[in-house]
Amino acid sequence: MRTMHLIDQAKAAKKASREILSQGGKSRTAALRDVRLALEALSGEIFEANKRDVERSAKEGVSDALLARLKFDEVKLLRVCEGIEALERKSDPIGRVLEQRSLDEGLILSRVAVPIGVIGMIFESRPDALIQMSTLCIRSGNAVILKGGSEALETNRILTRIIAEASSTQIPEGWIWLVETRGDVDNMLSLNSLIDLLVPRGSNKFVATVMKKSSIPVLGHADGICHIYLDESASVAKAIQIVLDSKMQYQAVCNAAETLLVHQNSAEILLPPIQDVLQSAGCEIRGCARTSNIIDVPQATESDWDSEYLDAIISIKVIDSIEEAIEHIHMHGSGHTDVIVSEEDQAAETFLTQVDSANVFHNCSTRFSDGFVFGLGAEIGISTSKIHARGPVGVEGLLSYKWQLRGSGQIIADYNEGRKSFTHRDL
Amino acid sequence: MRTMHLIDQAKAAKKASREILSQGGKSRTAALRDVRLALEALSGEIFEANKRDVERSAKEGVSDALLARLKFDEVKLLRVCEGIEALERKSDPIGRVLEQRSLDEGLILSRVAVPIGVIGMIFESRPDALIQMSTLCIRSGNAVILKGGSEALETNRILTRIIAEASSTQIPEGWIWLVETRGDVDNMLSLNSLIDLLVPRGSNKFVATVMKKSSIPVLGHADGICHIYLDESASVAKAIQIVLDSKMQYQAVCNAAETLLVHQNSAEILLPPIQDVLQSAGCEIRGCARTSNIIDVPQATESDWDSEYLDAIISIKVIDSIEEAIEHIHMHGSGHTDVIVSEEDQAAETFLTQVDSANVFHNCSTRFSDGFVFGLGAEIGISTSKIHARGPVGVEGLLSYKWQLRGSGQIIADYNEGRKSFTHRDL
Repeated sequence: MRTMHLIDQAKAAKKASREILSQGGKSRTAALRDVRLALEALSGEIFEANKRDVERSAKEGVSDALLARLKFDEVKLLRVCEGIEALERKSDPIGRVLEQRSLDEGLILSRVAVPIGVIGMIFESRPDALIQMSTLCIRSGNAVILKGGSEALETNRILTRIIAEASSTQIPEGWIWLVETRGDVDNMLSLNSLIDLLVPRGSNKFVATVMKKSSIPVLGHADGICHIYLDESASVAKAIQIVLDSKMQYQAVCNAAETLLVHQNSAEILLPPIQDVLQSAGCEIRGCARTSNIIDVPQATESDWDSEYLDAIISIKVIDSIEEAIEHIHMHGSGHTDVIVSEEDQAAETFLTQVDSANVFHNCSTRFSDGFVFGLGAEIGISTSKIHARGPVGVEGLLSYKWQLRGSGQIIADYNEGRKSFTHRDL
Repeated sequence: MRTMHLIDQAKAAKKASREILSQGGKSRTAALRDVRLALEALSGEIFEANKRDVERSAKEGVSDALLARLKFDEVKLLRVCEGIEALERKSDPIGRVLEQRSLDEGLILSRVAVPIGVIGMIFESRPDALIQMSTLCIRSGNAVILKGGSEALETNRILTRIIAEASSTQIPEGWIWLVETRGDVDNMLSLNSLIDLLVPRGSNKFVATVMKKSSIPVLGHADGICHIYLDESASVAKAIQIVLDSKMQYQAVCNAAETLLVHQNSAEILLPPIQDVLQSAGCEIRGCARTSNIIDVPQATESDWDSEYLDAIISIKVIDSIEEAIEHIHMHGSGHTDVIVSEEDQAAETFLTQVDSANVFHNCSTRFSDGFVFGLGAEIGISTSKIHARGPVGVEGLLSYKWQLRGSGQIIADYNEGRKSFTHRDL
């Protein structure tokens, strides 16, 4: 496996992706089960390999946070196996008829869900991501080329081997490949005739580089500069609760809040208690001049409005109107998740309609923008693109469709020359 | 208008696209009507400008085919106005709820259709395309930057002016811009923070260049190398009729057939009558060695299998099995439109399932792959990409969606810490 060149691996993946088209959903469900059972049966080997990765990485001086993500143990295995079981229970999406129309007598058009083909997935050092991504590809009928973090090298190798072998009685050989070098990543980006979609996970900068370097479509998000707008009519209790949760429940994630916009008419009531709870929770506050007139906090600079802190820091701006809030969000936001806290439905609807972001919320935390929370099952990522998929993306993000037309000898000349005419009728 | 730099035009378009979000569908319907009436009222001026374009281009020695496409007359005006009327009757797609789910009590998620934002459209010399594209953008709530062929310069200018002015009482100013130079096209491709989607129409080479040069998503097709596979069980009458229509009804289009694959067991029966009708219609035939053993035609070379002739030429290959046909299509096809002619439903379903193309047809002409034929209304183009939209693309190709979540003070901590749990329920 490992002596093959990337291009041959990609060709084998393309071939497998075509062979998958002839299989039913039952074989994919059986493959998921076989993979899950094999992971459980061979957990000792996996943990051994992972231990070597963790020890080597610790010696190389990687951070504790990265070591925590790298570590793959019983708890993480249990969690990914639960995820696989959920995919086993999910009805197979391939072949589902999305729309159907009679064009004329005996001429029936169907739009049918199909896999995308070959997915290139590039992710960080979490070995559980490799399992999640590859089993999502099994469920959606896609072949996959995986590139994991070099820290997880041995774990990724054994996981890929187990998944490939366990699925081999159900899914055509060659559907899953692991690539290991940075050079292979650059090569992946150029294989636009073999790889249909890239799913990079990692830093914003990395995702942006992938988008720039490759002409293959990319499913991935850039920044998560999320806002909470506290309207004139905001409930004080809800405002405090939502701000604290959005900022401090977990700061290192893209759906955490970074900037608070406060209507001038509610700033004097809202800012003091918000300052209290945030500072008690250990959050640094940076405010605009008007904010500093109300609460004693250091001044924010222009660059604060464009910052994704991913840390216990928040910027606060007092603004004149909901229109100014929306304008600020369009100017400085990243189109990820923005929230209005308001007791006036009219203001809420204005915000939900006019803010041009993937996720627009009323009276709840920014932290709800998540595939599992939305009920999509496993999450591939959160897209801030408007093309193909937007917001939290579930297995549907790995699907395309084709048009099937079933006729009985029809030719276009009969319709163009008036002998027949279309009688479009949705079925 | 014309003295502005492209980047300022694009910024104005982005601003307008955000303002459009606050408007209802009625204003878009009224704008379409106003545009149609203005085009009719000012047709004299349009025809004058077009006459100057045609005369200048004729002097510059452009081909008759291009002059025919460039010419804009009463007949073409009538046709585009009919198209606009159809868009006026179409229900407004913006704000449509695509799915809705209760996540918990008082926490309702909605996925809602929204415009994409700013579309960059690059098209050839047909002035009617400018009208079709800009009115599609009105219906779908998008702003648009148009680049037309230089031959149609005067016609495009007056059309853009009329459309901008007639729509100005209903749609925010700045939603439509015409750019005129090749340099502007290069600049368009780099504006990835302002332009959300590129829709290039033109030669395959041009579309491929756009895809390569820009990190903006591109909606467009590459080649149209369409196949007809005549199965072992093909009806002779249907085969003859479908081959003739697919190849000769109109050759210069992407959904015309280029290669015929004939099962070895039916080749002796099918090839002689097919040769007769194709040659009578003026079609040149190039065949593989086994074809030449049955009918007297010149030998095809390897490059014939990869050629989009767009002309009265067809290549024919005799193959051993349906599997070989599918393999040939995957090797040489462009994923556009492929047809099986067969009286066996099992073979047809195998073909429709396993051929990895945007359009897969049974017993009908390749020429049916078309947005109007499919009942999509106006067609933006035919996509051979698997991302966002595939096959004929209607107004839906210009739409995205957003997630709206309406809560009553919910925070994620309550769910993560077990005080509450999600009760996902589709509405």
